[in-house]
Order: sequence, then C-alpha cells, then structure tokens
Amino acid sequence: MKALITLGLLLVLSGCSTPPLRGTHDLGLVVERATGSVVVIETSQQSRLARIEGLGDLSHAHITYSRDGRYGYVFGRDGGLSKVDLLGQVLVRRIIQSGNAIGGAISQDGRLIVVQNYEPGGIRVFDADTLTLLSEVPSTYAPGKRAKVVGLADLPNQQFVYSLFEAGEIWLTDLSNPLRPITRRFPAGRQPYDAMVTPDGRYYIAGLFGEDALALLDLWNPEQGVRKILAGYGRGESALPVYKMPHLRGWALAGQNVFLPAIGRHEVLVASTLDWQEKARIPVLGQAVFVMAQPDGRQVWVNFAFPDNDKVQVIDVATSSVIRTLEVGKAVLHMEFTPRGEAVWISARDDNRVNVYDTRCFKHLSSLSIHQPSGVFFTHRSSRIGF
Amino acid sequence: MKALITLGLLLVLSGCSTPPLRGTHDLGLVVERATGSVVVIETSQQSRLARIEGLGDLSHAHITYSRDGRYGYVFGRDGGLSKVDLLGQVLVRRIIQSGNAIGGAISQDGRLIVVQNYEPGGIRVFDADTLTLLSEVPSTYAPGKRAKVVGLADLPNQQFVYSLFEAGEIWLTDLSNPLRPITRRFPAGRQPYDAMVTPDGRYYIAGLFGEDALALLDLWNPEQGVRKILAGYGRGESALPVYKMPHLRGWALAGQNVFLPAIGRHEVLVASTLDWQEKARIPVLGQAVFVMAQPDGRQVWVNFAFPDNDKVQVIDVATSSVIRTLEVGKAVLHMEFTPRGEAVWISARDDNRVNVYDTRCFKHLSSLSIHQPSGVFFTHRSSRIGF
Repeated sequence: MKALITLGLLLVLSGCSTPPLRGTHDLGLVVERATGSVVVIETSQQSRLARIEGLGDLSHAHITYSRDGRYGYVFGRDGGLSKVDLLGQVLVRRIIQSGNAIGGAISQDGRLIVVQNYEPGGIRVFDADTLTLLSEVPSTYAPGKRAKVVGLADLPNQQFVYSLFEAGEIWLTDLSNPLRPITRRFPAGRQPYDAMVTPDGRYYIAGLFGEDALALLDLWNPEQGVRKILAGYGRGESALPVYKMPHLRGWALAGQNVFLPAIGRHEVLVASTLDWQEKARIPVLGQAVFVMAQPDGRQVWVNFAFPDNDKVQVIDVATSSVIRTLEVGKAVLHMEFTPRGEAVWISARDDNRVNVYDTRCFKHLSSLSIHQPSGVFFTHRSSRIGF
Repeated sequence: MKALITLGLLLVLSGCSTPPLRGTHDLGLVVERATGSVVVIETSQQSRLARIEGLGDLSHAHITYSRDGRYGYVFGRDGGLSKVDLLGQVLVRRIIQSGNAIGGAISQDGRLIVVQNYEPGGIRVFDADTLTLLSEVPSTYAPGKRAKVVGLADLPNQQFVYSLFEAGEIWLTDLSNPLRPITRRFPAGRQPYDAMVTPDGRYYIAGLFGEDALALLDLWNPEQGVRKILAGYGRGESALPVYKMPHLRGWALAGQNVFLPAIGRHEVLVASTLDWQEKARIPVLGQAVFVMAQPDGRQVWVNFAFPDNDKVQVIDVATSSVIRTLEVGKAVLHMEFTPRGEAVWISARDDNRVNVYDTRCFKHLSSLSIHQPSGVFFTHRSSRIGF
C-alpha cells in the first residue's frame, strides 16, 4: 500500500512538473552573453518563464526557430550548436560543430539547419531534428584556401545564400537534396563582411569592407551576376573613426525604401529599392548599428555605437526625420519588435535589463531583469524568410 | 487499497488524456461548412489532429488567431463567435453576438476581437479572453438607418477599418480605449462590398458594387480622403455574367504590383502600387475568385468560379504569365500557403478533401479527408497585420 501511495504521489508530482499547454506565438529567447545561457520570455504579459544554461560562448550569438515554434537553435561563437525546448524549458541537444562560427539559418521546410563557419570556413548542414551532420560546403575558393563565411540567409526552395570574405564571392547553395549540395559562385567585390536579404527573399545585399559600395544579387535572376550599388555608401570616405561595423542584418525595408547605417557617419541613408539610388540622409546622434523597421514600416528604430550606446532614436518614415530620442540604458545591443509591432524589446547589457516600449506613444511598459542581455529573438522568425 | 489503485489509474489516465506539449506555429483549422465543425491540422507531417464540433452555421466562416497562437476565433454566418483551443482540442466558449455576421478580426495587442455584422449593422468589440461585450459601433449612417458592414481589417495602433455597403462610406475606428470607440467617416463611393489592406496596414482598398472603380484610402494620410483608382476594373463593362463576386481579401501583393481578379472576365489584372495604374491583363481560364501570392511573391495562385472551379492556375510574377494548370478537385473554395510558402493547401469541397501541393515543382504531396472543406486558416495569421 505504501508503494501505491508512492506511485500516486509520483504521478501527482510528475503531473505537476509537466509545463502547462501553451501557444508558442508569443514566446522568445534573450541571450545572456556572459553566462552562456538564454532566458525564455513571453510577450503577452512581458515576463520571464525560465533560464536555460550550458550553451557555451554566446558572444555574437544568433538564434533561429523550428517550424513548429517550439525549439530554438542557438548558434554560439565557439562553434556550438544548441537546440533548446521553449515549452519544456530545457536544453535538448548540443554539439560543437566547428572551431569558430558566426550564426546559422533554417531551411524553408524546417528540416535543415545550416551553420556559417569562420574556422574551418564553409557551411555545414544538419538535420533539424537530431543535429546529425548531413553535408558541408567548404569555402575553398582557391587550392588550399578556405574563406570565412558571413551573411548567411535562407531562401525559398531550400536554397541558402552567403558571402566569402577573403574570396570576394557570393555563393548560392541548393539543398533540395541535403546530401548533395549544388553551389553556384558569383564574384561580389572586395571583402564582403555581412549581408541581408529582402523579406521576400529576392534581393541579397552584401556590405563590402574593401570597396566603397554594396554588392546586390537579384536571386530571381542570379545569372545576371552581382551589381554594385550605392557607391559612396561605404567606409572609403569615412569622416569619423568607425567604432563598430554596423549589422547589415538590421537593415530596414519600409515601403519602397531601405534604411541603412552610413558607416562612420552620424547619418542613416535612405535608398530606393526601385533603382537602388540614394534618396536622402537623415542626421542621427551617433554611428548607427541596427536600423530596424517596425512591422508596419511606419517608424524605423536606430541604436548606436559607443559613446552613444545608451540611446535609441526613432525615425518617422513619412517625413524621414527623427521624432524621438529615448534614454534606454547602458550599452544598448539589440532590439526586437513583437510580431505585429505594438511593442519593442531593447536589451541594455550593462544595466542587466531588457526594456519594453510601446511603439505608438513611446511609453516604457516594463523592464525584465536579465544578466548582460544581448540578442533578443522572438519565435515569429520561424514563419519568415531570411531570418 | 482499491481506492488507491483507482486513484493511480485515474492519474495515469488523466496523464494520458492531456494533449502533449507542442508548438503552435505549424497548426491550423479547416472549416467543415456543412457540419458546423472545424478540423485541427498540422502542416509539418500534413495530418489531422482533431475535430471540434458545435460551431453553428459556418457558411462563409472566417477565422483569426490569438496572440499566443493557441486559440482560434471562428466567426459564423449566424452571428456565432466561437473560441476553440487548438492544443486542448475543444470548444472553449461560444456566444451568438448578432443575427447575421460576416467575419471578424483581432486587435494588434491581441486583447480585442471585433466582429462585422450585417444584422444589426455595425461592429461589436469583445474581450478576446472572455468574449465579454465591451462596446459597439452601430453603422447608423442616417437617422434610423444602419448599413451592412463589410471588409473589416485590423490595423496598427488598435485601429480597425471597414466599409458600409448602403452608406457608401469607409469608417476608421480607434479602440485605444475599447470602451470608448472613436470613429472617423470617409465617403467611399457606391456600395463597397469587400475590401483588403496591404500587408503593412497602409492602404485600404474597397471594391465598389455600384461603380466601375475601386476606393483607396491611405491610412497614413486619412485626412486626404478616398481616391478612386482603376476605373474600368469593375463590373460596369462586364462582358460575361458574374458567377461569384471575387474576394478582395484574396488579392495579392507581389513586389510593387498587386494582382486582382477582373470581375466578370477571364483575366487577372496587374496594377502598380506606385501609381495605382493598370499595367497588364493576364488571360486565365475562368472568372477568378481568389488571387493569392506566395509569401515570396514569386508566384500567384488563382482559383475560379463555376464552371471552372475544379482547377487552379499558377502565374509566374516575373513574366506575368500562367505557367501551370492543376486539376485539384471538385468545387475548389480556398487556398492557404504555409508560413514560408513551401506548400499550399487547397480545399475541394465536393471531393471532401484538402489537397497539399509543393509550390516549387507542383507535386501533389498529400490529401486529407475532411467533410466539405471550405476555408483553410493557419496560425501564422496571428502574427500578421490585416488578417
């Protein structure tokens, strides 16, 4: 009888310890860069749900999500690839897949995880369920030479596009058969260092460290090759020292225009996606790092490199002017909008806080205590192209 | 001791009957219009999970999703508003909120459900959690006269836009305080019968039954009022009898262009969103009903009114030409793309099937047996504006 009571208690306990059913559309992860952990958050009540530890070196970490929104794939700087369960609130699996990595992406059908590596250079393809290695594409651009891979983005039709820093090339890999990658190579210009893809997956734009222009590849017509756009954008004519290279991934598409950081200057550039010509320069208070459009394209939010990394400015797209400056906190590193854009979450690393703001009236809604937060990643990335 | 065994068994059984944890990003509902039920499906394995019954008259039903993706709100033709739990697989709550309704939407913050009603005419605002009535805006456009409301869409900043058929007006209601709606009225033209909003929530376009043009309201500049566009689009010059008025909600935005059904003709119109002028007409095999762009804007899928309602055609956006005709089944009623567009689900009512196709190679992937399926609605609508 004692055994049965124990059985009953065990069942009660195991029943209690099962996390309750809940949807995944309002969940996300915040990277705690110093402690190798992530915090599971939810955006409806703006609260913390759990901490998941043991993820290695998370400086410059990136996260993408499974097709069902339940699992986050955390790409660490140390080549670690970790799969965490947001509902079960545990680390499911973890591998060290390279010596030095810089992020990853998930295939359109959700079955493949692709990691971009510095060392050894190239991309590696994993089964999203088991993290088993399926294939790889070494970035061998000349005999014995492998380039660092940057600017990886997923595309429709099981394709991935990425840039090779030392090779000055953009590669387009088709993983329809994940065991036999098919890769096409395109000369891109000197030293592509980061890139982004438009939300429809059509235009891939890489920043060039070694040239004063950007490289544009039209993925509907890749056979036309790379076209240089926005000459004068780049670092060649920098009037100010560059404290931090801006993230191209944070570029903003709003209506027909793209908003991007002017490297080394206190300006945000506006260019038209119709002719890829510069249309305007908007003065801002420092060197922009992330320039991100709200989901409705009505406002663009900008954070800055040191010494202006305690503030965020908001640009009104209709008038191309700054309409608000917010004192967010010490060492602002990243921003993420809720899926429909009513709020923005901003990490302030040296305040050990993530602050949440209403995007309409700029009211401070709440603060979450999180240890040295860097990237903020919500699960709606699961449903979008190019994240 | 017997009692304890029973207790243990009960716990085991209750443990078993709790649905397992799972993400909500790959879930959806399919309407079974004849039986007042919905089927819960998942798009990763392409399978049925459950049927939920007792939802009343589901002819012309619409579904929107909660902020967390767990709950679907089913708007019935009989004024029924039902909240179903996709994870618990049960009907949570159901009210009859009007005599005759035509769909609804959810607010940007996920807290309000708004229903558009024919009888009595107007919109009603409910708490998304409890379905408690909070307020209403009767569509009283002249003393003692209420119009049928059509074309409701949610907008950023807790706003909703909708059209009044008999009044010939577009109304814009701000529900920042849901107990005190603030409404602005705009003359729109004769008899708006349906409408859509662009994915960024900026442009609202209503079809006019009584005029040969469309009504466009720029919601960034509503004070400029309604502008008539695409004269010659409409029914005024119809050469063929109109078997079914097309759904404007199914219009497709791909790149800079919008694709829309030419009423009464065997054509799909292409218009530029830059100047709202007609650019091309694409011949198709029948009268288009839904004209829907893939998430990547690369292809547009078209279904047809009787007698061509057994087929679907695919338009290549780059060349503006039909590249495929699929024989899908009897009485094709609706289509829905998976969030990143690798597959499309198409309901064939009189075959009692939903057929799933690969959007790249047009391969038939699977068929689900569902009783007289009509609308197919996936949970990623939860994260988007204007659904």
